[in-house]
Amino acid sequence: MPERFEIVEKALLSLLEGKKYATLRDILITMNPSDIAGLFDGLEENQIPLMFRLLPKEQAAETFVEMEPDAQELLIRGFSDNELKEVLDELYVDDAADLVEEMPANVVKRILKHADPEMRSSINQILRYPENSAGSIMTTEYVSLRPHMTVEEAILRIRRQGIDKETIYTCYVISKDRTLEGIVTVKDLLLAENDDIPIEDLMITNLIYVTTQTDQEEVARMFSKYNFLALPVVDGEKRMVGIVTFDDAMDVMEEEATEDMEIMAAMTPSEKSYLKSTPFDLYKHRIPWLMLLMVSATFTGMIITSFEDSLSALPILTAFIPMLMDTGGNSGSQSSVTIIRALSLDELHFSDLFRVMWKEVRTAVLCGVTLALACFAKIFLIDHLLMGNDSINLLVNGVVCLTLAVTVVIAKFVGCSLPLLAKHLGFDPAVMASPFITTIVDALSLLVYFMFAKSLLGL
Amino acid sequence: MPERFEIVEKALLSLLEGKKYATLRDILITMNPSDIAGLFDGLEENQIPLMFRLLPKEQAAETFVEMEPDAQELLIRGFSDNELKEVLDELYVDDAADLVEEMPANVVKRILKHADPEMRSSINQILRYPENSAGSIMTTEYVSLRPHMTVEEAILRIRRQGIDKETIYTCYVISKDRTLEGIVTVKDLLLAENDDIPIEDLMITNLIYVTTQTDQEEVARMFSKYNFLALPVVDGEKRMVGIVTFDDAMDVMEEEATEDMEIMAAMTPSEKSYLKSTPFDLYKHRIPWLMLLMVSATFTGMIITSFEDSLSALPILTAFIPMLMDTGGNSGSQSSVTIIRALSLDELHFSDLFRVMWKEVRTAVLCGVTLALACFAKIFLIDHLLMGNDSINLLVNGVVCLTLAVTVVIAKFVGCSLPLLAKHLGFDPAVMASPFITTIVDALSLLVYFMFAKSLLGL
Repeated sequence: MPERFEIVEKALLSLLEGKKYATLRDILITMNPSDIAGLFDGLEENQIPLMFRLLPKEQAAETFVEMEPDAQELLIRGFSDNELKEVLDELYVDDAADLVEEMPANVVKRILKHADPEMRSSINQILRYPENSAGSIMTTEYVSLRPHMTVEEAILRIRRQGIDKETIYTCYVISKDRTLEGIVTVKDLLLAENDDIPIEDLMITNLIYVTTQTDQEEVARMFSKYNFLALPVVDGEKRMVGIVTFDDAMDVMEEEATEDMEIMAAMTPSEKSYLKSTPFDLYKHRIPWLMLLMVSATFTGMIITSFEDSLSALPILTAFIPMLMDTGGNSGSQSSVTIIRALSLDELHFSDLFRVMWKEVRTAVLCGVTLALACFAKIFLIDHLLMGNDSINLLVNGVVCLTLAVTVVIAKFVGCSLPLLAKHLGFDPAVMASPFITTIVDALSLLVYFMFAKSLLGL
Repeated sequence: MPERFEIVEKALLSLLEGKKYATLRDILITMNPSDIAGLFDGLEENQIPLMFRLLPKEQAAETFVEMEPDAQELLIRGFSDNELKEVLDELYVDDAADLVEEMPANVVKRILKHADPEMRSSINQILRYPENSAGSIMTTEYVSLRPHMTVEEAILRIRRQGIDKETIYTCYVISKDRTLEGIVTVKDLLLAENDDIPIEDLMITNLIYVTTQTDQEEVARMFSKYNFLALPVVDGEKRMVGIVTFDDAMDVMEEEATEDMEIMAAMTPSEKSYLKSTPFDLYKHRIPWLMLLMVSATFTGMIITSFEDSLSALPILTAFIPMLMDTGGNSGSQSSVTIIRALSLDELHFSDLFRVMWKEVRTAVLCGVTLALACFAKIFLIDHLLMGNDSINLLVNGVVCLTLAVTVVIAKFVGCSLPLLAKHLGFDPAVMASPFITTIVDALSLLVYFMFAKSLLGL
């Protein structure tokens, strides 16, 4: 698919450059708005408005929503007031709110000026909710029904109102004071045996809903748990204020997974796509963590300095430091990443702490013993026999492998418990991934190493 | 929500233990199947069939689908032939195929024996497709229409067939030989101006579809790109064979993100949830990578051994090894994780290799210089002046900081290019994350360190 698409892209660009607008338009109208938006990414700045004006009104608006913010800004600046109004009229309220959030102040002013009053007030309402809350990603356009309506009346209402709604398939039954009373789907309506049945007999009343303040991550989790098309959003008095649709939940899922991965790799999450980020953008997101972790590694250096005499007495000990540190770091991050992901999928809670620790310690003993045995055999066969390194005798080998086993157990213990503790204390558990765990485990493994070396080798 | 739910759970369990079945049933019928399935996880083995039999037929089947495989197996083994048939009749074909895949052979035999012939053949068809292909996650139940039908006829057909279909909202217009010709939504049908319009005038013909062989990751990406409710699956001759619905795509997205994270943390992906995995399960997924990486770290040890003389001459050099290795590892994994994620979201391709390298090298120079300056100041102020360590003179300090800067650049270069190369060669780029990059960068950074030390300090 991507390869095939690249060919289409090239063909369309050459049509544009050859000024074959009629042909270009004929092809564009058969394309999906997401794909057309993708096409705009490859255009020169002066080509963007040209191509955009070829699109029919509705398709133009749908394409506009899928475009990157810089292209949107460019277009809006070039729009006549009339053109702007036309695009805005076609936008869903939540997309308009996203747009307003992305644009600079003077563009926002122009947008709000040309939006119709109802949309303007909805945009303002959505923007008032905290970032990453259900309120901030919802749309205020949904089909509302009344309990006493019949199936026939309901279908009629959907037919009349549906055109402007993001989804018509789930309808919300609300009372006079806008309290959410039930949910009825178009499937239920179409499959109802009789057109005269009142909605209140058909609607589901064991409602699952979120409030405007619910975190968007929680909202996404509910979608993946319940398989809904849309989830109602209510205020503190259970009055209906909007809906979140599954496509927004999918975006949130993707965003949150990316964010977790970025944090786990010691970066501040960024909303910009990689290719749009400048080196300085990347630098800003990466340097604070590198700096912090570099300074933390000072402790490891201090530990080595304080055992300098042992290392001078038996220099071969230094050769095993990287292997011990790396294996410890890897063991720890295996545990921490497993726990962080389970936490973010809501499969684990703080109350599972002791179960998790017990499971990890047993796993760690299995891993530690296996690795220690393999390491012992490898050092004996390769370093000692094959390479003939006499300073690596059985006792030194024993110290290294014992340290290895103990390090793995410590690493997995630290790796599994820190994310759970972080979550419990209200921090993001993803911070407790590889880089942090590695720094802590490095210091601990060196301490263990030198303690064993001192006591067993008498250094 | 989770806290509130735990209280409900406890109340229901005490009703079950107190044999208050009527009350229990009254509460259960108001609950969502996903939540009831969650409840079963906390039950004793003998309580599961007891509680399950309290549920009305349809809700029982919906709950069954959401349950863990062990609970499903337990129930099926206890079912009478009649009960089994009843549950199977209520299942969607794709859920039935999932069930068959999870169950042991003798249970599968019983399931297939009691499924109706049509379902049996559909299950067999789905199971024949490769794992992780669109064919293996699709359902064969969808609403099909004919081009010449009118809106009225189409709605009538949906009303008649809809009850058994997973989604009725997207309908597929197929020709006599089952070729997919167009798509029409219930929204289009309901909003059509006139009931006599033929479907072919209403349907969308710029179709986006996948084949049975398309990878499920690609399918999920198309959902998040196009915001579809369902995606048609066709065979090699563009004949319609099934649909994938958005809820399955969401599950795939979640699975694939988890899988990427596991691979990035050097684990073989597992489909079992953490709490259901035994320590031995975890061990099996973790030990191969730990072993491989431990053996790779041998090279780092060999590098240190070959520069043993330099280290003996200036033991303080050892103290900076952990800091250099860790910072290199962290810098590299920042780049690799960023690239791996962008690749899996399809934001980057191999053709971007040089753009990516150029961007990363510039970022690396910024990071490297900042870190080196900070490190120089820290060593000079703290280690030299404050701690009075005389062996750390300006030249030693210079060697450490120069190594640091070079290491960061190497790390980011390796970190960004290896995932792209891996993808290009058909390997999973996620393998090229922190642990692998760290091992490579460790060796390189030590080489740089000792080379600078030898040439600048004359060791």
